[in-house]
Amino acid sequence: MKAVLDYLRENQPRFVNELCEFLRFPSISTQAEHRPDLQACARWLTEHCRKIGLDAEICTTAGHPVVLAHTPRPNGRRPRFLVYGHYDVQPPEPFELWRTPPFQPTIRGRTLVARGSADDKGQLFAHLKAVEAYIKTDTELPCDLTFVFEGEEEIGSHSLPAFLREHRQKLACETVVISDGDMPAKNLPALTYGLRGIAAFEITLRGPARDLHSGIFGGSVENPAMALCQMLGRMRDARGKITTPGFYDGVKPLTAVERKQFKRLPGTEQSYRRFLGVPQLFGEAGFSSSERTAVRPTFEINGLTSGYQGEGGKTIVPAWARAKITMRLVPDQNPTKVLKATVAHLATLCPPTVRMEITGKGTSAPYLVKPSSAHAQAALRALESAFGVKPILTREGGSIPIVTDFKKVLRADTLLLGFALPDANIHSPNEQFDLDCFAAGQRMSAFLWQELG
Amino acid sequence: MKAVLDYLRENQPRFVNELCEFLRFPSISTQAEHRPDLQACARWLTEHCRKIGLDAEICTTAGHPVVLAHTPRPNGRRPRFLVYGHYDVQPPEPFELWRTPPFQPTIRGRTLVARGSADDKGQLFAHLKAVEAYIKTDTELPCDLTFVFEGEEEIGSHSLPAFLREHRQKLACETVVISDGDMPAKNLPALTYGLRGIAAFEITLRGPARDLHSGIFGGSVENPAMALCQMLGRMRDARGKITTPGFYDGVKPLTAVERKQFKRLPGTEQSYRRFLGVPQLFGEAGFSSSERTAVRPTFEINGLTSGYQGEGGKTIVPAWARAKITMRLVPDQNPTKVLKATVAHLATLCPPTVRMEITGKGTSAPYLVKPSSAHAQAALRALESAFGVKPILTREGGSIPIVTDFKKVLRADTLLLGFALPDANIHSPNEQFDLDCFAAGQRMSAFLWQELG
Repeated sequence: MKAVLDYLRENQPRFVNELCEFLRFPSISTQAEHRPDLQACARWLTEHCRKIGLDAEICTTAGHPVVLAHTPRPNGRRPRFLVYGHYDVQPPEPFELWRTPPFQPTIRGRTLVARGSADDKGQLFAHLKAVEAYIKTDTELPCDLTFVFEGEEEIGSHSLPAFLREHRQKLACETVVISDGDMPAKNLPALTYGLRGIAAFEITLRGPARDLHSGIFGGSVENPAMALCQMLGRMRDARGKITTPGFYDGVKPLTAVERKQFKRLPGTEQSYRRFLGVPQLFGEAGFSSSERTAVRPTFEINGLTSGYQGEGGKTIVPAWARAKITMRLVPDQNPTKVLKATVAHLATLCPPTVRMEITGKGTSAPYLVKPSSAHAQAALRALESAFGVKPILTREGGSIPIVTDFKKVLRADTLLLGFALPDANIHSPNEQFDLDCFAAGQRMSAFLWQELG
Repeated sequence: MKAVLDYLRENQPRFVNELCEFLRFPSISTQAEHRPDLQACARWLTEHCRKIGLDAEICTTAGHPVVLAHTPRPNGRRPRFLVYGHYDVQPPEPFELWRTPPFQPTIRGRTLVARGSADDKGQLFAHLKAVEAYIKTDTELPCDLTFVFEGEEEIGSHSLPAFLREHRQKLACETVVISDGDMPAKNLPALTYGLRGIAAFEITLRGPARDLHSGIFGGSVENPAMALCQMLGRMRDARGKITTPGFYDGVKPLTAVERKQFKRLPGTEQSYRRFLGVPQLFGEAGFSSSERTAVRPTFEINGLTSGYQGEGGKTIVPAWARAKITMRLVPDQNPTKVLKATVAHLATLCPPTVRMEITGKGTSAPYLVKPSSAHAQAALRALESAFGVKPILTREGGSIPIVTDFKKVLRADTLLLGFALPDANIHSPNEQFDLDCFAAGQRMSAFLWQELG
């Protein structure tokens, strides 16, 4: 192991340069115009896997390609583990809030600023650098490894389930390892044993056949933007509870043990409020902020669009109004049922003066595993060796849809070992990745194969 | 008069071509990038006034220029009248709904399609063509005429009051004539004796300092889009009443005589519903559609903007949410008071979890005059001569802010003689102007000077 750790220490500057190259691809999966960038990024990643000594191939799918790589000379007797990551990124908009261009990686102190630096290019890259250290120092890996890097995580991983089914044999593994989340603080690594799920949709209300002059017609016809506000406004009450009947069906109550873990997290409500920049925190009554974001479901408006949005004014009754909605869901809510109930509830709230359209539906199940398994214990030891601190057990608010697909298709649980920091601005302008965490992540990956193997 | 009427009849094709030239200027006053187009359009209009025999000049203002023109050889003994119009237009967005480009005038049957064709370039041009007929046929005008064409009507006529004050002497007149509205049907001309006023503002709610990942942070912080929906949603109740305390203070009740006039308007609620393309009409309980649009005040959302609006989804809690609002106001509401009360009401509805900003405030008073004056009676006779039908008396839902300025500065009432049709798509895609109404408007203007003189 010494050779591996030395190799990692000595090559950090080169690793950072390589990561910058990776980050220059604007691999924005949700925008069709960036399709060529996703393909170029996948080709670059495949080539990089080969360069470090892996057998790698680029696999076409119905959507963006998957990069599949293996450690060479597989040995049937060694256990096999699968590392998952994604090379696609969130849209960088709003551009004007970036202090440096999102796809021109910039180093500021010990921080690397770029879209995708933390989510998830930087984290998957740490795993590649760890295996590179094994291969380049001729250190024997105690296990065989498979790497699966997809390009559709930010748009719902639509092609991955079919990919997993198709390559089921090749992908068989003991467990899946994913680093695509965060840790509570720089000196507090964590193993995540629970994730929120998600249900998404877009609602459009259509009123008049065209935008109408608000002087000539205003007052005689429903304003779709007003109808949308009234409907969405009724989806959440003053105590932060979602009003859809049946919404909370199956929600696991927070246990005393879990509440104790949440209390151990660093930071105060006051420092959290300042970090977010809000005048006052808000959430479901009876829960702390960390509990609200990890173990309680939400109903969020991600975007609103209606009428005239340009400079100055335009005196119209808009023809339509639209909202993009996602709900974060928790164990054991059923996302399909919640989505159905939500749309049904909206239909009852919708006045007969507008037409409601629901599009873009998608769901992903929440996830919860036992943190006492042998694999989880091995991961906790690897975290402690890499960071030099006793890790904690957490549940996270994000969704990693494919965790449930891995369970379903490969019958494998997932070890969630994220090492982005809470201020990484994931999905926000000025996304950043801590370079110490990058290095620690590489060490963690190197130790992990020893502990698991 | 025969020479004038013959001249008008014989020159229609040329008039239409000239109007098309006028319509090719994208004189969108609300968009700064179009400033040069407004100036070019004003220069063209000034030149055109000179060509038909008027004394014309272009007057700079703090905003877009005013075109000022007079009939030549003023005679102190003749009464003077002032014709007002505006050469600026509404933004054409959304472009994709135009069947032909908004600034490439297109003739379809007896209709001219272009942004500004009805509002207001086509209507002001009819007045110019009538005076051209008098001048070119050497027919004596029984009065002196002043023409004032501004470029800021669609953005609140900010520079006009100062312009009127500055040129008060030159602009002194018996009455003002404005054709910037519509008539109930092709065979039913109207004199409008009342207008709604307006109060406008923009509301922005700011929450977190940046867009936040809805998985990591969602549930612990107010969603500004949700807060905006809840606030705006509460501004109107289920019966269509605005909830701001004091909002209806001063609203003149509808008289039995007025209600009778509204009942004489053509069309049914059913045909009106089909024309607008809505599944069901909606408005304040206790009033018909024509009453709701003419004599009752409104609260309209003209635009909504928040978060991600592009293709696909983006799982964020948006940092801010914004709405553009206009309220149409009626006699004798006080727009300044209503605006103040509205902002105060929103402030009480605003949760402490977001910061509220109000910008872009503007108001214009409602207008109401006696329809029995000598000038009004003269206008009714001119309408009957031009259209061959007995005109009706109406109140209109639109706002022509400068009507109150004319009253205040020049102490002159206004004759509102609009001849756009209700299906002119004013402020909407595919704005159009009926060419028969164009010709009848010219005749009306020609008769009007005889009747008034």
